[in-house]
Amino acid sequence: MRKQKVTFADIAKETGFSKTTISRYFNAPDTLTTENQEIICRALEKLNYRENKVARILASGHTEFIGFVVPNLYMHYYAEMLHQMLTSYSKYGYKFLVFESYDKEDYERTYLQDLLSYNVEGIIILSHAIPSRELASYGVPVVAIEREDHYISSVNTDNLMGGVQAASLLYKCGCDDLFFIDGPILDLARPHGRRDGFINICTEKGIPFEVLISDVDNSDYKETYNAFSKMVDDIALRYPGKKKGIFCANDTYASMVLTHLVRSYGHFPDDFSLIGFDGSPVSENAIIPFSTIGQQINVIAERALEVLNEQIEARNKRIPESVPIRHEVVTPVVINRETTSQSVLAEPASGYKTGGIGRRSKGGKINNSLLGT
Amino acid sequence: MRKQKVTFADIAKETGFSKTTISRYFNAPDTLTTENQEIICRALEKLNYRENKVARILASGHTEFIGFVVPNLYMHYYAEMLHQMLTSYSKYGYKFLVFESYDKEDYERTYLQDLLSYNVEGIIILSHAIPSRELASYGVPVVAIEREDHYISSVNTDNLMGGVQAASLLYKCGCDDLFFIDGPILDLARPHGRRDGFINICTEKGIPFEVLISDVDNSDYKETYNAFSKMVDDIALRYPGKKKGIFCANDTYASMVLTHLVRSYGHFPDDFSLIGFDGSPVSENAIIPFSTIGQQINVIAERALEVLNEQIEARNKRIPESVPIRHEVVTPVVINRETTSQSVLAEPASGYKTGGIGRRSKGGKINNSLLGT
Repeated sequence: MRKQKVTFADIAKETGFSKTTISRYFNAPDTLTTENQEIICRALEKLNYRENKVARILASGHTEFIGFVVPNLYMHYYAEMLHQMLTSYSKYGYKFLVFESYDKEDYERTYLQDLLSYNVEGIIILSHAIPSRELASYGVPVVAIEREDHYISSVNTDNLMGGVQAASLLYKCGCDDLFFIDGPILDLARPHGRRDGFINICTEKGIPFEVLISDVDNSDYKETYNAFSKMVDDIALRYPGKKKGIFCANDTYASMVLTHLVRSYGHFPDDFSLIGFDGSPVSENAIIPFSTIGQQINVIAERALEVLNEQIEARNKRIPESVPIRHEVVTPVVINRETTSQSVLAEPASGYKTGGIGRRSKGGKINNSLLGT
Repeated sequence: MRKQKVTFADIAKETGFSKTTISRYFNAPDTLTTENQEIICRALEKLNYRENKVARILASGHTEFIGFVVPNLYMHYYAEMLHQMLTSYSKYGYKFLVFESYDKEDYERTYLQDLLSYNVEGIIILSHAIPSRELASYGVPVVAIEREDHYISSVNTDNLMGGVQAASLLYKCGCDDLFFIDGPILDLARPHGRRDGFINICTEKGIPFEVLISDVDNSDYKETYNAFSKMVDDIALRYPGKKKGIFCANDTYASMVLTHLVRSYGHFPDDFSLIGFDGSPVSENAIIPFSTIGQQINVIAERALEVLNEQIEARNKRIPESVPIRHEVVTPVVINRETTSQSVLAEPASGYKTGGIGRRSKGGKINNSLLGT
């Protein structure tokens, strides 16, 4: 069953040309007459020759390889972004070389140098170990997502608007005090738009607020969960009788806060509201679907590839200067679910004897009219 | 800042050799004297020449590219496997070309042909659109994980043993009736070891059991969730007063069943036990951490790369026949958590007024001794 590889010698034998002529056919076809090109072409078909793109790459420089570098793949946002990128195969034919850097600078640099020596045509970068100034010096098109981008093109969610939307929604659903919860943000990571938009609205509306940043190692789920749980317990103790609105900087964090609240109270407590950021599947599939500021990840992926492709084409035409650095912004969408409503029950399945775990009406009593009994 | 690319012309000028000689240095260095090789080598250093691996690949055939093909990345198991593969970079230096096939045969075949034309050195395949007989005919090393593998090497969890472990645990925790729940299994997907091991134990112990297979499109979360919820509701209605033990064929399914039970009852019900399969993070991070049969995904990834690497090396030495097809099996581990215990409370955070959502003692009363009040 194993197909034998067709060599230049086989093609030479078939056509009667020298191996040098066959080599010229692949690397500099214009040096052959059209007639001879056709003879070789027919021989290739007859021999069932599988195109060796590596040879073509050497001639043209078009590898169709794109490097995709993320800090990790366990954060729902990064995995979803990879998924959206991969769906572009039928459109662009790009093949993605995927790498998790864990924000280790030297490790990432080694990989990037490796990519460059393979002539990748472009890089999509979400990790934030290496400054954009260095990335720009590599001489290949690079598009940044959610990281420092002074010297390279980027496509980002409008984080400031997202922060405004989140705080506004918490304000509208009657919260007395607002809290912004985030993990550590590295110097070269996304800027503080989410936080700043949140602060702007709190200040404007005159709502008391706190910005709570954990310095936990967020690659460890347990550790991060415990750190945020402690924050939430502390908020519960310090603000008894108040309606507390929590805005988490991403859905992974929000799902931890939700899990902790439901584990602790047995249901989602009345005196809390919660909103995440990202709109990843976890926000919808959680035990109680929670509100979130949805990043249009499919739109961001599409735009990033458009911006990258434009640069790649300009570079292939040897006019890279014709495409200026661009910073595109994609509008986020508010996804309003139960955790920012005033008092709604989780929909119970019919036929069950006991109640749901959603919000209960004020006073902690279950609104039985919605239940089976 | 942009580095200028060093051309053969630059090197020729620097050394005084012809461009043909420079080309021979890269493609057939043995045709040059050692002395001339050294002159060129020193010139490259002086010119800060960045190795063009594509040229070296043409000479050696070593691309260091591995194709990694999965059905999708939203199933926790596949994303975790990718993550484990990527961590091998520091060991093997392999760069992974990642592809989601959605089990669409033609789409996957197009991509694989594309990979082959780029001389990938090997393929790790978890999708099951293309029969192993065809994959074997491609003439490159291929290692299968969790799919049909008659004609190619593979590394798999011992699924039969996993099924035995799951049914035994449900039996031990006092279940009266056992249920195996799975989605559709395509012809070329993993064989039915999990189900068969489950059936073996049920038969051996004389426990009544049912095998429930949904024909839902499992790429749609909502649809799958609804199908499994309906199954569970149906089980609850048909087996009142019995202790029902559910074994789900993977953790993604088990987390859906858990979510449905907790949403319906407000806590994990006494008369159900639940165990998943995979040992992915969702089993630990769910609202109630659930029992599972843990696949040692890191071990599987490591072995798969070892098997692949062995084949790659034999092929590079032109003795591919020296390495026979191997089918390796990795032992799964039982991870026993609350959902297969007899009666344990979820650990409540101190200082909260209301109870947890874990199991309650028989009769539905909360064991308050573990709570804050």
